[in-house]
Amino acid sequence: MRDNYRSRCAAEPAVLPRVDPVLHGEWDASAPLTEEQATNFDRDGYLVLKNWFSADEVALLQAEMDRVLANPDHLARETVVTEANRHEVRSIFDIHAQNPVMGRLAADERLAGIAQFLLDDQVYVHQSRLNYKPGFEGKEFYWHSDFETWHAEDGMPRMRALSMSVLLAENGPQNGPLMLIPGSQRIFISCVGETPEDHHKSSLKSQHVGVPDKPTLIQLADENGIDAPTGGPGTVVIFDCNTMHGSNGNITPYPRANAFFVYNAVSNQLVEPFAASRTRPGYLAAREVHPIYPIAGRLTEQAA
Amino acid sequence: MRDNYRSRCAAEPAVLPRVDPVLHGEWDASAPLTEEQATNFDRDGYLVLKNWFSADEVALLQAEMDRVLANPDHLARETVVTEANRHEVRSIFDIHAQNPVMGRLAADERLAGIAQFLLDDQVYVHQSRLNYKPGFEGKEFYWHSDFETWHAEDGMPRMRALSMSVLLAENGPQNGPLMLIPGSQRIFISCVGETPEDHHKSSLKSQHVGVPDKPTLIQLADENGIDAPTGGPGTVVIFDCNTMHGSNGNITPYPRANAFFVYNAVSNQLVEPFAASRTRPGYLAAREVHPIYPIAGRLTEQAA
Repeated sequence: MRDNYRSRCAAEPAVLPRVDPVLHGEWDASAPLTEEQATNFDRDGYLVLKNWFSADEVALLQAEMDRVLANPDHLARETVVTEANRHEVRSIFDIHAQNPVMGRLAADERLAGIAQFLLDDQVYVHQSRLNYKPGFEGKEFYWHSDFETWHAEDGMPRMRALSMSVLLAENGPQNGPLMLIPGSQRIFISCVGETPEDHHKSSLKSQHVGVPDKPTLIQLADENGIDAPTGGPGTVVIFDCNTMHGSNGNITPYPRANAFFVYNAVSNQLVEPFAASRTRPGYLAAREVHPIYPIAGRLTEQAA
Repeated sequence: MRDNYRSRCAAEPAVLPRVDPVLHGEWDASAPLTEEQATNFDRDGYLVLKNWFSADEVALLQAEMDRVLANPDHLARETVVTEANRHEVRSIFDIHAQNPVMGRLAADERLAGIAQFLLDDQVYVHQSRLNYKPGFEGKEFYWHSDFETWHAEDGMPRMRALSMSVLLAENGPQNGPLMLIPGSQRIFISCVGETPEDHHKSSLKSQHVGVPDKPTLIQLADENGIDAPTGGPGTVVIFDCNTMHGSNGNITPYPRANAFFVYNAVSNQLVEPFAASRTRPGYLAAREVHPIYPIAGRLTEQAA
């Protein structure tokens, strides 16, 4: 298979054009987003849907999150990631498969239906997480394109995937919000370095390979600015698989929390990694395709 | 001498009342601040003076900063602090004494004159710094009251000192701006732990003693909020010696830079440390009192 997005193979970083669409479908009146929303996603590489879930639904999701975080012993051990050098839970992977409430959320029409529209295909969950970034000591995530890793380490062939973050805590300007560079999805930054063996065991805590070079980051930020959308619990941030993003640390007392789903087009299922000697575990990158059939209606205790 | 602010002596943290004023003088029409500005400083523990220095003056200061950072070899070696594990210059102490332009700035009526008014006394420079927090990798500064350290380690008897930060770069919401808790200057958080020998050699990079406890920080932030003033170069942020403050890291490409002066009332000169076995070096805490005679007029190449 032709590699349109070579990375981790050369001594110098390079900027390659994106050969895939951002908005894969055509908007029409039946779309689950307005025409303006679809256009903005195409232009910026992300879209914020404020208060997309109701207060009742948020309460349900938060209660479930608290329950899961308080007792992670029922979960597959390798899916539970703790803060570097600490025992606090930072992320739980494969949460949609391990928790019925989160599984119901991942299949919700208000998420999966939009993913189908934007990617113009049936979708499946490539990766899911419950993220909890504690106050006082939440560490930063350096700038990265998710696709760079998914392509190099997981064998995702094309840019036809996106992420949705369902905020479960107040995302303010000071508690380390997600920062995105609008328009950055239009270029692919080919990174230097070679993927080490079992790179995911360290890269989830802090990453040193697959890191974009500083001159290109400076140019991207100078030309496009940096946006850090804020929003309350229930807000959804959707971003393209190749949008450059990161977050600062968080010394405030206020945690960040979200349920995070990566949807991939079924036509874009994984092949062999493009720049790694073996694949990552399934909880980081699903190799089996289970198409989602979006579920309509509100989240309730029963429905979950 | 009676110790009104005992810290680093007990096994449990404690909250003590402030027994000193915040605004030491009485406002009248001859004051260098408006009545509202004086009242706000008293209430919040900080005050922002936007564009306090002109564009020409800022250009002069920035050029001087660039010159000094590019060639720190002329400076006393112990005054130059580098980023933890890196060689990039993070702070240069005692800058007002080592550089004539910064010395002129420290004595400027628009800074020192206000310090005299707020502290109702003649003032001298307790500490000065040129701070440069590089983009991409600027690390966080955890929450602290400066006075806690100045009292415990330097022997500053009373809360009659303040800091002024003259911004020399754009201070935006995303590049790790100074965060302050309004009203926090009204209480003194007595910290646990004992000051290690030569604590300043490690504490300037990351601090573990003299750190406020989390429950009190949560209460302060919940009751008062957290403010992160933004401003362009030439803006001045004044804050009381006991105002709780800190800053997040900075993964953006944009550095932070400022000239930083701590003014102490001459009547508040240092005595023996209240909770350390010996004093810190003079470039961190001046033990000789040289009262400032404020200089009127604009900063120019000649004047500097």
